[in-house]
Amino acid sequence: MTTARQYEPLELCFRGPEPEGSAVEIDLRAVFSHEGKEIAVKGFYAGNGEYKIRFLPENCGTYSYRVSGAALPESETGSLEVRPAEGENHGPVRADGIHLRCADGTWFYGFGTTVYAMAHQSEAVMEETFQSLEHAPFNKIRMCVFPKHYVYNTNNPAHYPFRPREGIAPRSFSAEGIPPYPAAHRERDDYWDVHHPDFAFWDAFEDKLLRMAKLGIQVDLILFHPYDRWGFGNLHQADNLVYLDYLLRRFAAYPHLWWSLANEYDLSDAKTLDDWHEIEDFVAKNDPYHHLLGNHNCFIVYDPSRENITHMSWQTKQLFRVGEMVRKYGKPVLIDECRYEGNIPEFFGNLSGRDMTRSFWRVTAQGGHCTHGETFLPGTPEGDAATRSGEKDVVWWARGGVLHGESPARIGFLREVIESLPGPLEPMPMGLSGVMGKTEEEIRRAGALLPDYAQDMIKLICSMSPADRDGFFAVEYEYAGHCGEDAYLYYKDDQCCARAELALPETHSYRVDVLDTWEMTRKTVLRGVSGAVRVDLPGKPYMAVLALREAS
Amino acid sequence: MTTARQYEPLELCFRGPEPEGSAVEIDLRAVFSHEGKEIAVKGFYAGNGEYKIRFLPENCGTYSYRVSGAALPESETGSLEVRPAEGENHGPVRADGIHLRCADGTWFYGFGTTVYAMAHQSEAVMEETFQSLEHAPFNKIRMCVFPKHYVYNTNNPAHYPFRPREGIAPRSFSAEGIPPYPAAHRERDDYWDVHHPDFAFWDAFEDKLLRMAKLGIQVDLILFHPYDRWGFGNLHQADNLVYLDYLLRRFAAYPHLWWSLANEYDLSDAKTLDDWHEIEDFVAKNDPYHHLLGNHNCFIVYDPSRENITHMSWQTKQLFRVGEMVRKYGKPVLIDECRYEGNIPEFFGNLSGRDMTRSFWRVTAQGGHCTHGETFLPGTPEGDAATRSGEKDVVWWARGGVLHGESPARIGFLREVIESLPGPLEPMPMGLSGVMGKTEEEIRRAGALLPDYAQDMIKLICSMSPADRDGFFAVEYEYAGHCGEDAYLYYKDDQCCARAELALPETHSYRVDVLDTWEMTRKTVLRGVSGAVRVDLPGKPYMAVLALREAS
Repeated sequence: MTTARQYEPLELCFRGPEPEGSAVEIDLRAVFSHEGKEIAVKGFYAGNGEYKIRFLPENCGTYSYRVSGAALPESETGSLEVRPAEGENHGPVRADGIHLRCADGTWFYGFGTTVYAMAHQSEAVMEETFQSLEHAPFNKIRMCVFPKHYVYNTNNPAHYPFRPREGIAPRSFSAEGIPPYPAAHRERDDYWDVHHPDFAFWDAFEDKLLRMAKLGIQVDLILFHPYDRWGFGNLHQADNLVYLDYLLRRFAAYPHLWWSLANEYDLSDAKTLDDWHEIEDFVAKNDPYHHLLGNHNCFIVYDPSRENITHMSWQTKQLFRVGEMVRKYGKPVLIDECRYEGNIPEFFGNLSGRDMTRSFWRVTAQGGHCTHGETFLPGTPEGDAATRSGEKDVVWWARGGVLHGESPARIGFLREVIESLPGPLEPMPMGLSGVMGKTEEEIRRAGALLPDYAQDMIKLICSMSPADRDGFFAVEYEYAGHCGEDAYLYYKDDQCCARAELALPETHSYRVDVLDTWEMTRKTVLRGVSGAVRVDLPGKPYMAVLALREAS
Repeated sequence: MTTARQYEPLELCFRGPEPEGSAVEIDLRAVFSHEGKEIAVKGFYAGNGEYKIRFLPENCGTYSYRVSGAALPESETGSLEVRPAEGENHGPVRADGIHLRCADGTWFYGFGTTVYAMAHQSEAVMEETFQSLEHAPFNKIRMCVFPKHYVYNTNNPAHYPFRPREGIAPRSFSAEGIPPYPAAHRERDDYWDVHHPDFAFWDAFEDKLLRMAKLGIQVDLILFHPYDRWGFGNLHQADNLVYLDYLLRRFAAYPHLWWSLANEYDLSDAKTLDDWHEIEDFVAKNDPYHHLLGNHNCFIVYDPSRENITHMSWQTKQLFRVGEMVRKYGKPVLIDECRYEGNIPEFFGNLSGRDMTRSFWRVTAQGGHCTHGETFLPGTPEGDAATRSGEKDVVWWARGGVLHGESPARIGFLREVIESLPGPLEPMPMGLSGVMGKTEEEIRRAGALLPDYAQDMIKLICSMSPADRDGFFAVEYEYAGHCGEDAYLYYKDDQCCARAELALPETHSYRVDVLDTWEMTRKTVLRGVSGAVRVDLPGKPYMAVLALREAS
């Protein structure tokens, strides 16, 4: 009997001759059964005559399985004894209402970073990236399958995911003279033979994924992107699906993967919205484990209300809208790009460490999840110190290397605070900020709970046009969230208050902590309070107040 | 022959018996004629048997005049020799297209502050306020005629503008137990006899106005406001006009006054929009000099496109919309309340000095005008040091006293920079930020000027809903303005760039200065450049880049 561990992929290996025709669409499949529930998985060809089936058991106890298909000399059956999960294996992260939760019930709070072309760098740089991640507070990374051609990163990778089509004239793929911006590639490219994966690529890429798993980092794997000069951004749609087929057969059993259909999907001229829907559908149908599935935008949000889409993966700087989106879609909201800490001329990458930290607190206080990046300009002292190996022009957000920013330590402090809460935060339902995105009727209903003197104001607010109202409250946003009546977190953002007034439930007793989110200090200032509570603050920016229900 | 000075009010005094009936609607009038142009003015009663006519001559040379009316024993005629203006007398500030300009052609750039109840404080505090203003960088103040009942300021003034109606039971006007918020006073108050001004009030108030003039400070005089427990906020509409009649007869000849119909007009439950229109109309018709006329909002902007309204007097924190509003209304845009430097719990008054300074730069770089306020909480070290006289609970924005903030020095630096420019700034017409508030068609037209690689992006931007588009660019705003092709100012705001890329005209030669708006330094880094220019920056927030055309 085969033994396996809950939440750890099991691999069944077979040997056979090189597939004829497609090395992707091979006929190798298995069904795993546990207490009447069947999970069907497809196998993949790994090169060198090796055929594999990977399976992720999520239950303990005995599974039976049956492997079959033309790629095997004969069918095989067996049984599998799955022992309880060990250590930090909590199973795939999935959406649970507006929150993220591991299969074993552990809440997951995303503290992400971004290294788009992580897997396409020199061995030295990749090694440094892993070392950096080992000491960083991040539990999620956004990285691309395909290499990336964009400002600050245009290098060719060591390997490509597919072999060139047989007989086609080889291309050099020089970056010379190609503007590093998404190009309008409407014609489809015929260069690559997607039916013939380059196994050197997939082995190396898989190695990076496994190392992320060891570091406890969820990989939000970016399946497509428009920053391309190799033709991966404008494959034929049929080829896109073949590529996905191989990727899903091979990787779906890894518990720590999420699917990000694209980075800035809307900049991909080569794909129509129908193409994206087909891609989405294909991934959803061919992933037996229902990993998280999102699609990251530039200008036009990919509709998070679509059934297959598990969460809002939102590029935005409108961080005051996290609560609104949580309410609107009833799904987890991940800010998968806001702005990065750095000093490049481009708007997206020149935040101070203070402001990158602020973004995390603004998002997290509303029950969202935020993503970091670091973009120091090569040629400046910070940019030049980007690797210890001395490799030039390495910008973390694109290539990895060494972290220099001031925000990671503070993001770590935030993570500690959030993970110490009794449960996940959800956005505060009321207060004036709560009107964002609400209709007149919703505001009137919620406003009825406010004191008498506020009623005339509620009427005025209702009389504003929705655009004026949202514009108004976007810039007067109070960042706050709560965990039932057990915890209330107020992030005061840029407000240098010498005092805060809380309105806690009368029915419980609370301890109040004051946190300096920049200095990373936390101090209990009140105990045994309830109802209207006045808290003294030091009149500095970036303070937070946390009220925690005390045991009665 | 009477002599007078251009831009200085001339006063003609007459003695007579106490008016019977109304002491406001007295029949005393004059017509001043100069080169075929006639200006009619009304006189006012100043108490003690004194009747006065004030006139502001704006031309040099000889005026003839004729004074008449029932309040005079007989008509008088005379002539007036007006000599050219002296010193810093530039005449009333008026709108000139999207800019502000004094009558003599001098550009005016507003650097305002706010002391709402300035004129209703103890002599000691008022004295300190003037001393503070003498050393401050402000050239404009927002202050109220009526006393103010609101958080941090509920004191009774020494005098009231009117006598109580004869025979009415005296009121105490204690603040005790009255919530310090605009109350819903829909019923009109009968207590005050607006036909009988209390001259002690008007003499003292006028003294404050004159002292502001001496300090070179424009007074944006707030005629009504809703923070009231005395009944001035809910006079009968007929009484509102009588009050305005007296004020205009008496003050209109002062060149440094602007009319602000209200502070937060939309919180005044006692006045309908029709009432405001009537008030606006009355002020416009009864001001022979056409002083600047605005109306300040809380939630609902008072339509700046109205003919009598000379400028947009906007309370907002949406500072990225200044350029949009300049374009939309074609009038000067004054941010007459954003947030104040201080540490009170209320959102409106707890900005850091850095952020107050930032607000000024954000607004000014787009060709707008900004207004300061300071709100340090009594009971905190900054709040308790608010007066040298030791008077307690003095918050600058409400009552005056001493300035403690870090922003005034920086606002002074900005003022120097702006006043050294060859002319007023207007918002930059293009760049992605320029799409704010624009229609699809306008964006397409402007986008056509951008390079080829941006064209696909322009199409995407056009396909966004206007609300999504404005939301997007509000948080990616590039603060910049230009003065023809003579000067280009780029305020980098929170962007910590190590480099900026400018696109200057090819046809002229420019000097480029780098400014640290917080450290108040300015350094010329390039000379003789044009076209695409790369500027090194220190990778810090709050930097500005100024390109100035060099003499050819």
